[in-house]
Amino acid sequence: MTTLTINSKRFQEDFETLARIGDTGDGGVHRPTFSEAHLAARAWFRERAEADGLQVQVDGAGNHSAILRCSPPGAPALLLGSHLDSVSHGGRFDGALGVLAALEVLRVIQEANLTLRFDLEAIDFTDEEGSLLGLLGSSAVAGIISQAELDNPRGGRQLLLDGLARAGLQEADLLNAKRDPAQMAGYLELHIEQGPRLEQDRAQIGIVSGIVGLASYLLTFSGRADHAGTTAMKDRRDAAQGACAFTLSARRLVMEKFPECVVNTGALQLLPGAFNIVPGIALLSLEFRAPEQDRLDELEQAILELARQEAESFDLQIHFEPKGKHLPTPMNPLMQEALRKSAKKLGLKSMEMASGAGHDAQALAGLCPVGMIFVPSVAGASHSPRELTRWRNCVNGANTLLQTVLVLGKVK
Amino acid sequence: MTTLTINSKRFQEDFETLARIGDTGDGGVHRPTFSEAHLAARAWFRERAEADGLQVQVDGAGNHSAILRCSPPGAPALLLGSHLDSVSHGGRFDGALGVLAALEVLRVIQEANLTLRFDLEAIDFTDEEGSLLGLLGSSAVAGIISQAELDNPRGGRQLLLDGLARAGLQEADLLNAKRDPAQMAGYLELHIEQGPRLEQDRAQIGIVSGIVGLASYLLTFSGRADHAGTTAMKDRRDAAQGACAFTLSARRLVMEKFPECVVNTGALQLLPGAFNIVPGIALLSLEFRAPEQDRLDELEQAILELARQEAESFDLQIHFEPKGKHLPTPMNPLMQEALRKSAKKLGLKSMEMASGAGHDAQALAGLCPVGMIFVPSVAGASHSPRELTRWRNCVNGANTLLQTVLVLGKVK
Repeated sequence: MTTLTINSKRFQEDFETLARIGDTGDGGVHRPTFSEAHLAARAWFRERAEADGLQVQVDGAGNHSAILRCSPPGAPALLLGSHLDSVSHGGRFDGALGVLAALEVLRVIQEANLTLRFDLEAIDFTDEEGSLLGLLGSSAVAGIISQAELDNPRGGRQLLLDGLARAGLQEADLLNAKRDPAQMAGYLELHIEQGPRLEQDRAQIGIVSGIVGLASYLLTFSGRADHAGTTAMKDRRDAAQGACAFTLSARRLVMEKFPECVVNTGALQLLPGAFNIVPGIALLSLEFRAPEQDRLDELEQAILELARQEAESFDLQIHFEPKGKHLPTPMNPLMQEALRKSAKKLGLKSMEMASGAGHDAQALAGLCPVGMIFVPSVAGASHSPRELTRWRNCVNGANTLLQTVLVLGKVK
Repeated sequence: MTTLTINSKRFQEDFETLARIGDTGDGGVHRPTFSEAHLAARAWFRERAEADGLQVQVDGAGNHSAILRCSPPGAPALLLGSHLDSVSHGGRFDGALGVLAALEVLRVIQEANLTLRFDLEAIDFTDEEGSLLGLLGSSAVAGIISQAELDNPRGGRQLLLDGLARAGLQEADLLNAKRDPAQMAGYLELHIEQGPRLEQDRAQIGIVSGIVGLASYLLTFSGRADHAGTTAMKDRRDAAQGACAFTLSARRLVMEKFPECVVNTGALQLLPGAFNIVPGIALLSLEFRAPEQDRLDELEQAILELARQEAESFDLQIHFEPKGKHLPTPMNPLMQEALRKSAKKLGLKSMEMASGAGHDAQALAGLCPVGMIFVPSVAGASHSPRELTRWRNCVNGANTLLQTVLVLGKVK
């Protein structure tokens, strides 16, 4: 069993085929959840898994699985996977790498005709990136999704409903996609780091210790729309001023007082939005992250207070609409240990690190033991067409995943 | 002749009928150029003018005219008018008041069966507000529109082409709509002030001395899109930071060093525009105004330099795309004198003032003598559903317009 390795050529061919679905022509892909390209990628995954002789399953949240029965009847399943959706104009590695590595691991185990302590399931989770809600499929599997969240998703209610309809899914089934913990042996995910630390430390494998917590809000600064030629500067209640002052001071706050955290103004809309009208309304998409729960709470309090102050200083009203919150999540210690041992066995240099990005593992952590492997991102680029992981590192990551499955699944 | 006055009831009925076309339900109207509501307003104007026995004419720029032949053959025409388009979600007075007052003046002269030194033309100019280009119809009449401007309009080329198609207009005809100066006796426009000065000074009529100059630019700040969870704050090239810093410092610059000027960031788009992606690009719609030519030049230089500095301080590239420029324009002294005399004759308190807003008169100033009347805006509100001018002030303005036509047109 120790000599099993993945088939790099087959794995790479799959990777390149998948990267052409939603190809943006600049090295990236555009596959927002339930877009035409995303649905095409999922159709390709189903066909590929069936051609490989695996059993295909789609659950009520639209999660796509390829299943290998390789254990005695009644055994639980170890899930391996990631997601096939991308951010808008993102990269070809984020998510796709983990799904394809999972599929490849199943094929290698199938070809070796091994019996393990669990069945294997290569899973593509729905809407990890959050075009609609974020971690939608994994939250549904974990049974932690609520109707309130579905009523007010970060992408807007209509986008969610339209997307579900396009994918042929029912909203009610999302709430019923929860798995039985007794049937879950665990979840392992291979993912690109999306930051520069592995590269800086010349490590080949990142063993994820935990995932940072995150909160997102839609902030509405409200002032008064006025004629931009006839209204004196001093008489304006310009919503853009408050939103811009907040965007600058939130950055300063985090850099000075929360150096281990990050904040982002990802979108900003001024209304009515004409050259010659002072903006009466500014809609600001805010997100911030912290590695520990108490720091996330402190940051949340400080940042919302800052928004209140900036609004007040420009005579604006402010409204906060929570758009999602994920608590910081530690990975399972036994999973971390198995990953570390496997990397060592393969002669790969590994390091422990926190994940600044959110992942499906955080939704699943309450359901079963979870673990994650990172592989290096060139220059740390991510959520961008510049995203790149050297192919040898992709192979190292997939082999570490395979080795960990063997370590965990060995029939004693 | 001295006892002629406009028919307030008929004028008001027209005003209220017109305000229902594109009514936004909150006291305002939404009639962007060539929108369904705008085209409906123009259709109503044609029908109304025809029902009044006036000759209707539409030129190559889509300007709509109602013509009263009231002079000996071969005489030029005095144009009275304004515009029926509105800004997005604007008020019911801006533009509409001037067009309806012009129509009413023609009806009163027609009913009195007077002979003047010129024919009268009540004109509705196309796209004064600039959903597409700004002062489009009057610039075409003045022959100062260029293909280069049409190729790069502030609303984007496609919006212009789609709009022209909806209105049944040809682009080539825009360039051929120029009038012969010999056929132009002048242009007079009644308009709301769109600022608080008349109200503050308790004056009933504003005699416009000149129109401020204006320049608009689309600024593009370019940095790098990155993952908002895994990219350290210090490593970001966040386009939002540059755009927001500029929006704040442009306001400070104007308030401190150009107190007679104004500046506006009317729209701001961050791309790709997701909660979890550091914005790589920020598109900023900038407009600034100054009452004198040399100050407009100084302001332009200072403000673009400021944008360069702010971009540099956040390690961003910057690109400036000029989106329009209108020089400060004095009104014709003889027209101003005729307006002042007329207001005095009607017992109305008038004051001289500059216009902070742009108007079609500035495009026409090179073609013929131009003059403008302002009436008070309650609380100075404009480009907003809160826009309001008391009806007695609307009537005062229309009577001043009528009186001035009689003063200028009297056959000696």
